[in-house]
Amino acid sequence: MVREERGILFVVSAPSGAGKTTLVRNVISQVPGVSLSVSCTTRTPRPSEHEGVDYFFITPEEFNAMERAGKFIEWAKVHGDLYGTPRANLEKLRHGEDLVLEIDTQGAKRISEAFDDGVFIFILPPSLEVLKGRLKDRGGDSEGAIQARLHNAQKELDQKVWYDYIVVNEKIEEATRALASIILAERCKTTRLLGEKIGGTYGADNG
Amino acid sequence: MVREERGILFVVSAPSGAGKTTLVRNVISQVPGVSLSVSCTTRTPRPSEHEGVDYFFITPEEFNAMERAGKFIEWAKVHGDLYGTPRANLEKLRHGEDLVLEIDTQGAKRISEAFDDGVFIFILPPSLEVLKGRLKDRGGDSEGAIQARLHNAQKELDQKVWYDYIVVNEKIEEATRALASIILAERCKTTRLLGEKIGGTYGADNG
Repeated sequence: MVREERGILFVVSAPSGAGKTTLVRNVISQVPGVSLSVSCTTRTPRPSEHEGVDYFFITPEEFNAMERAGKFIEWAKVHGDLYGTPRANLEKLRHGEDLVLEIDTQGAKRISEAFDDGVFIFILPPSLEVLKGRLKDRGGDSEGAIQARLHNAQKELDQKVWYDYIVVNEKIEEATRALASIILAERCKTTRLLGEKIGGTYGADNG
Repeated sequence: MVREERGILFVVSAPSGAGKTTLVRNVISQVPGVSLSVSCTTRTPRPSEHEGVDYFFITPEEFNAMERAGKFIEWAKVHGDLYGTPRANLEKLRHGEDLVLEIDTQGAKRISEAFDDGVFIFILPPSLEVLKGRLKDRGGDSEGAIQARLHNAQKELDQKVWYDYIVVNEKIEEATRALASIILAERCKTTRLLGEKIGGTYGADNG
């Protein structure tokens, strides 16, 4: 009756400019027992990004070789760049560690088909106007890239309906608390707990 | 398409001695927008308890009169005392305020049949041994009363399986954080949000 202890997979999506990356990093530094699934990408690193922390930055040739070798659980082309989730990252779940996977809605949909007990969280900017402002302020992107991101953002927003949770990122402190709360609350779900620690302590009354 | 804004009903049960009362009061003082549903009871107040804060302490005659007048959503006899949830308390939900209802498992079951979107949380002491110790330390109860509570606690524990969440009250700070997190996380559930604030801000893509 005792289930193997297993971490929880949290899948976080957001339109570009919703502040997802900062939010996720805040939460990972505050909540013990959860780490980030670092993805591979062929896109150019932004000035603030670090190899192996934000992404594994690889060439299209390396990406294609990994893909052919079946080393990605899922991969997608977003704004012309390739993004892939290494299968090896999910190993942590088997050791009871929770994992946050930042991924676009296409990728999240494919993960949801493979993992029926993943937790899907959508980060929403307070409004499209705020989103537009944030995309312009970011710097380092051309006007064309901004427009493409905004168009894509509107399409991504339509996908929020099938996610389990929506966090509105109006104030970063509140949004951080909300995302951390989702992680802590999911750990208390009866369906996840029974058969693990609790079944052991209180005997066979959970049949 | 816009749903009436409505508070969330959190129903919290625990065996006697699990530390439910302290936990719930901590959370209510920390989380804005949530208040306690104060129940009526015919039992004698404990030294630390205050009228209208912990319970409305009423006589069996008053209780029966309220019951006959249909003023309780549910009521039950527990260890020989009557407990009832005033229907008027749930009015707060209509004004968008979240509500925590502390109630035994019998009462919780009846509430679950009436409210299909209530959130059901079970507070668990770390072990039966700890529970036994806490019931003895409490004071003010006879040995017979302690034994009856312990017997009842074991029966209540069997009911945890149908609750949505289980919070193990080993360390009060951690349990407080877990319970607060459940409240904050439930507020982010997509099913609760769509059609309310989010539908308004982002247009008709949530059909």
